[in-house]
Amino acid sequence: MMIADDLLLMIPGPTNLPPEVQEALGRPAFYHRGSDFAALIAACNDGLKKVFQTENDVLILTSSGSGAVEAAIVNVLSPGDRVLVVEGGKFGERMGEIAASFGADVDKFVVEAGRAADPAEVRSRLSGHKALLFVQNETSTGVRQDADLLAAAGRDAGALVIADTVSSMGGMSIPCDAWGLDVVASGSQKAFMLPPGLAFAMMGARAWEANATAKMPRSYFDLKAAKKSLEKGQTPFTPNVSMIRALGVALDLMLGEGLDNVWRRHHALANACRAWVKASGLDLLADEPHCSDVVTAVRSPEGTSSKDLVSRVRDNHRILISGGQGDLAGKIFRIGHMGCCQLDGLLRTLEATSLELQGLGFATDLAVGLDAARAAYKAGL
Amino acid sequence: MMIADDLLLMIPGPTNLPPEVQEALGRPAFYHRGSDFAALIAACNDGLKKVFQTENDVLILTSSGSGAVEAAIVNVLSPGDRVLVVEGGKFGERMGEIAASFGADVDKFVVEAGRAADPAEVRSRLSGHKALLFVQNETSTGVRQDADLLAAAGRDAGALVIADTVSSMGGMSIPCDAWGLDVVASGSQKAFMLPPGLAFAMMGARAWEANATAKMPRSYFDLKAAKKSLEKGQTPFTPNVSMIRALGVALDLMLGEGLDNVWRRHHALANACRAWVKASGLDLLADEPHCSDVVTAVRSPEGTSSKDLVSRVRDNHRILISGGQGDLAGKIFRIGHMGCCQLDGLLRTLEATSLELQGLGFATDLAVGLDAARAAYKAGL
Repeated sequence: MMIADDLLLMIPGPTNLPPEVQEALGRPAFYHRGSDFAALIAACNDGLKKVFQTENDVLILTSSGSGAVEAAIVNVLSPGDRVLVVEGGKFGERMGEIAASFGADVDKFVVEAGRAADPAEVRSRLSGHKALLFVQNETSTGVRQDADLLAAAGRDAGALVIADTVSSMGGMSIPCDAWGLDVVASGSQKAFMLPPGLAFAMMGARAWEANATAKMPRSYFDLKAAKKSLEKGQTPFTPNVSMIRALGVALDLMLGEGLDNVWRRHHALANACRAWVKASGLDLLADEPHCSDVVTAVRSPEGTSSKDLVSRVRDNHRILISGGQGDLAGKIFRIGHMGCCQLDGLLRTLEATSLELQGLGFATDLAVGLDAARAAYKAGL
Repeated sequence: MMIADDLLLMIPGPTNLPPEVQEALGRPAFYHRGSDFAALIAACNDGLKKVFQTENDVLILTSSGSGAVEAAIVNVLSPGDRVLVVEGGKFGERMGEIAASFGADVDKFVVEAGRAADPAEVRSRLSGHKALLFVQNETSTGVRQDADLLAAAGRDAGALVIADTVSSMGGMSIPCDAWGLDVVASGSQKAFMLPPGLAFAMMGARAWEANATAKMPRSYFDLKAAKKSLEKGQTPFTPNVSMIRALGVALDLMLGEGLDNVWRRHHALANACRAWVKASGLDLLADEPHCSDVVTAVRSPEGTSSKDLVSRVRDNHRILISGGQGDLAGKIFRIGHMGCCQLDGLLRTLEATSLELQGLGFATDLAVGLDAARAAYKAGL
């Protein structure tokens, strides 16, 4: 089976893997109920707690990020519970679908693609809801929500605050405890520099309280069972030991760089990408103050489709960027700048994208765009 | 983080990985919605259909094997459905727990550890049950059920037949279609020679029919969504692309060896292990005609605990065998002989185990045991 391994992945996940992570993934399998595994999972939990900025355990699930989102919902809610879901893109939609699948009574607060939810408006809509659900970083639009303000609104209304941070955790500072996020879900294949296949779930004190009476059915995603097992250095089900070994390596890399530096690097890369967008005469999809630090969504110039752009950048430059999803297909392109991404890779991507936009008939000055990106990177550090 | 990579894994999963699989795991991540992935997942589905001996798609989930067992249950049942669960060990128990978690009305047919269920007795207990659930190969006891006869009993009673083959599929011939298994779950870390982290689910025509009205909630484990995505060469959620690439490699290895040869090798290894047990003056836990081809459970000789045995074999020989689980802790030891296991590794394991049994005061003749194993391997081929 031929898989092209020469592509630079500048999509919002899966991301490129550092060589240390690849090396770890290629090592032998090992026993999941021995002392080596117990030490490993304890170290991973410690590292994840730093990344999540929480005193609570961060439970490791063998699943995609969406598995952790399901876990975040079914461990604290009961069928019939009214919940308010902020929906500003594909992943907000998915959060509502998961909650509805398990019998929640879902109210949606739909936000236009590219806009963040106004926390005051969310506050005014909350009334008798058991939980407020939102995607902190909407991968489909490149929008970062004001998670701190949304959390405050949720808590003031007596609602549990459930946040999907699948694409952002690790790439942006999300102080879970300080912001009062009760349940937080994330995944391995974005800022954690790993392949897809592990997911993370954090539950705070209020969430564990809700867990005691939460009636949505759960077995594989039972976080109480995961917490009990973690105390013995285990997981309830045979976990992906290879990925957890690689997680240990990735966390060492992140903590070695320093989380503040990691977040600053992501911020600077995002700054550079946005500066390139503007200097190139392109338009950001997202409202600029709410632009994400890990992925940038750009409107396709009039008369062009991002489908063509993505193909040309891939075929002519061996760089993979993303198009839009659902209604946004063709209308936007997205550049991921997360994980082990560095300025050099981003500049190559921006150069290739400018060239191919020119090829599609869009007039843009290559040097102006790249200079702006370089300057903004420095300013963002 | 130090993880001992020099251990020979002779436990019933995770198993040793072939070098080709390790190499594949250590390669770069790649995009899960591109043509490379579509070709890969189609090839994996083709290979899995051969292993499962089915005309139905085999859906690939990013989870532990227990995730596929949950999927097998929640996709065809509704809360309140009466089901009969054959429970002959830890994994049978887990199947019942999963069904109960999602609201099934669970009747248990408890079989003594080490015995297979009598199909006639199962037949007589089936009455108005929506499904019959059983673990085809109970990893905790080394017992193989008569899956063909159980399936016939289930079908004759109008019940769906749901089988957990997590530890056996790939290592034993389980003709899913010919035997009339309606839903079959398996996992990656046993006979498939992969780390844990992928799971497989096959649904037959009767299962899809049941799926249309099955009301147990599901989102991450929604197999209809998985089937719909597979038709587009995708998965509903970002899958573990690294593991699926390695699955492609592992399936090539299995099909290259020839499935008949793979199954024969497993059978010969099991034969060898059982011959060693008997020639060494030890007792099998399992009723011999129902002994598994992938794992052998042996009673600890009187006055010894398998906990000591496992430690000594590990520390003095760098070989990992398993003890017992739950009530069987200390009372049995288990030797896994699945995946890329060959006679040489098994003989090393048997020799080390004999030596350490001697060290624990059990009188056994090393040469007699090993000669019996060698002869039985040849006879089993």
